[in-house]
Amino acid sequence: MGKKVIYIAGLGLIGGSLALGIKRGHPDYTVLGYNRSDKSRIIALERGLVDEATDDFAAFAPLADIIILAVPIKQTIVFLKTLSQLDLKDNVIITDAGSTKLEIVAAAEKYLMDKSVQFVGSHPMAGSHKSGAVAADGHLFENAYYIFTPSKLTKKSTIATLKDLLSGLQARFIEIEAAEHDRVTSQVSHFPHILSASLMEQAGEYAGEHDMTNRFAAGGFRDMTRIAESEPGMWTSILLTNKEAVLERISDFKQRLDRVAQLLSQDDEEAIWNYFAQARQTRKEMEIHKRGGVESFFDIFVDVPDEEDVILEILELLRGTSLVNIHINEENREDISGILQISFKNAKDLDHARKVITDNTDYNVFIE
Amino acid sequence: MGKKVIYIAGLGLIGGSLALGIKRGHPDYTVLGYNRSDKSRIIALERGLVDEATDDFAAFAPLADIIILAVPIKQTIVFLKTLSQLDLKDNVIITDAGSTKLEIVAAAEKYLMDKSVQFVGSHPMAGSHKSGAVAADGHLFENAYYIFTPSKLTKKSTIATLKDLLSGLQARFIEIEAAEHDRVTSQVSHFPHILSASLMEQAGEYAGEHDMTNRFAAGGFRDMTRIAESEPGMWTSILLTNKEAVLERISDFKQRLDRVAQLLSQDDEEAIWNYFAQARQTRKEMEIHKRGGVESFFDIFVDVPDEEDVILEILELLRGTSLVNIHINEENREDISGILQISFKNAKDLDHARKVITDNTDYNVFIE
Repeated sequence: MGKKVIYIAGLGLIGGSLALGIKRGHPDYTVLGYNRSDKSRIIALERGLVDEATDDFAAFAPLADIIILAVPIKQTIVFLKTLSQLDLKDNVIITDAGSTKLEIVAAAEKYLMDKSVQFVGSHPMAGSHKSGAVAADGHLFENAYYIFTPSKLTKKSTIATLKDLLSGLQARFIEIEAAEHDRVTSQVSHFPHILSASLMEQAGEYAGEHDMTNRFAAGGFRDMTRIAESEPGMWTSILLTNKEAVLERISDFKQRLDRVAQLLSQDDEEAIWNYFAQARQTRKEMEIHKRGGVESFFDIFVDVPDEEDVILEILELLRGTSLVNIHINEENREDISGILQISFKNAKDLDHARKVITDNTDYNVFIE
Repeated sequence: MGKKVIYIAGLGLIGGSLALGIKRGHPDYTVLGYNRSDKSRIIALERGLVDEATDDFAAFAPLADIIILAVPIKQTIVFLKTLSQLDLKDNVIITDAGSTKLEIVAAAEKYLMDKSVQFVGSHPMAGSHKSGAVAADGHLFENAYYIFTPSKLTKKSTIATLKDLLSGLQARFIEIEAAEHDRVTSQVSHFPHILSASLMEQAGEYAGEHDMTNRFAAGGFRDMTRIAESEPGMWTSILLTNKEAVLERISDFKQRLDRVAQLLSQDDEEAIWNYFAQARQTRKEMEIHKRGGVESFFDIFVDVPDEEDVILEILELLRGTSLVNIHINEENREDISGILQISFKNAKDLDHARKVITDNTDYNVFIE
């Protein structure tokens, strides 16, 4: 394939992590970076995420074989327009990293249609509560979905070339139409953020009149409002670039609330029971119980007392097993104390864990 | 205070755990139990939760100084009526354990007004994903709120006597009006269950037409729908006995959705940003970041590779500290890999942890 020059615009968490992943798969490639602020540019150079960095986006674009725009959605669209006015390499591949795809793909088609470029939308589905080049992590995308949304400027080879470029990420590549991407993410991500923020807004106002509100909020409420702490700027852009699908989900949801209200007004016990039972069944059947929708988890639950070093004691018993997660549970309706949940990669380790914990402790062990 | 006879109707998780907590605080008291099904009754006797057990609710009621109804809400109301027809001890204290309080308090006042009894509503705010006498746990209510809702049949001494009876639970006792209890819990618990179940219902139907729906559902969606797996029968009863407050929350929420939809239709970027920013701020200020609304947590975050025994290695460094929780994070907007979050009871242990992990490993350690 020869040595390539990759240009990454935006050296934050996503751009920086992509740079590390690319260098892992292709140590011989040259990675150039753009960042507006000094800070992430300096860190990116210090950490070796990129070979050279600029604060002038147009400067490196003509040098690149592949350009990745890892900046906010609005900036991505601005840069697509900028690229249309630059003298780029023939057949350069351009892609992005935005959370919505339809407007970006449309902008690429609008601005770049007459140029000899390839464009495909990208959405690497990973994040962190950390940000900036300092948080860049070559393992960020391991087992995460990396979604390609083709455009009229996508050739057969475009996605294959990018998959090769990004092989070091160890992500799961998926191809889907941009409009369908935006519809699906409106349902499972964008609209839920509205539900969460609106519930938080509602409870915040309620707390002003009902002073036990904050104190009685338990595990369920905590779960429901966790994503209400997401970064406002990013979510504003996401909503505004996926307006139609989100509005449709809001409207659909209001009808569901109306129906529940009606059943409740009518004291329709059987229908309300069915409503809850169906929701429970749907979730149990959903791939949500599998990590990333593909790999299954194998969970064990251990009743543990609230004492020092109990977790350590159990982990010592499990030394060498493929433990993938561990946490003390606050599940379902209200607060729970002392259920240690440990997840394994396979059934063999699960069986082993059950045996050694049962044999060596008095703790109650169960598997759901 | 003398030896008392306590009668607990319902030997499931809640009733059984109350029995254990009472015996812990008052080993000399006699605890009698009722359970309809043989299974929990036999287990309760075998485990020593109760001294004697019956399947005839009326049989033991006349023997009791204190009667605790730990059965479903509807059954609680039936038993209050039954109690009105029995020859009870003079000045017997009757209480319950239901998740809604107004209807139960009203039923007690209606059926028991002419009798020489004391009644106060109770809501022990704890639960588990386990159930039955087999899961009963004397530590279930430690640090949990135990809410009393007075009635016209509550004397000054009623709650004091119950607090003494239940001292072994190590719960946090709170007194609040039944109507206010139901309003507050409608906001932080009952209505959120509707949001969660309806989101699950909506996504389930969407998945039928959009087959990537299940695969793209990440951490945020998982959080939002966790309580949709709650037990349908219990939640049906809760909604039906807190209809007015829940309907009011539904109606209020629809107006919030309308407002977001309007802002979105108008492309009002600033207002949408403010909406998300306010929700974030409200949650950050909420006591939700403190366990049970009282005790603060002290959290450290460690970047860990996906390797065997890494957690064990870290816990060995932390041996003897007051670690209260540990889990690998999937926070905020999408999936995250490899952030180990450890919570401590105090700042001293947090500082110690930061130091020993930094000194002894190469892992990146940060504190939010």
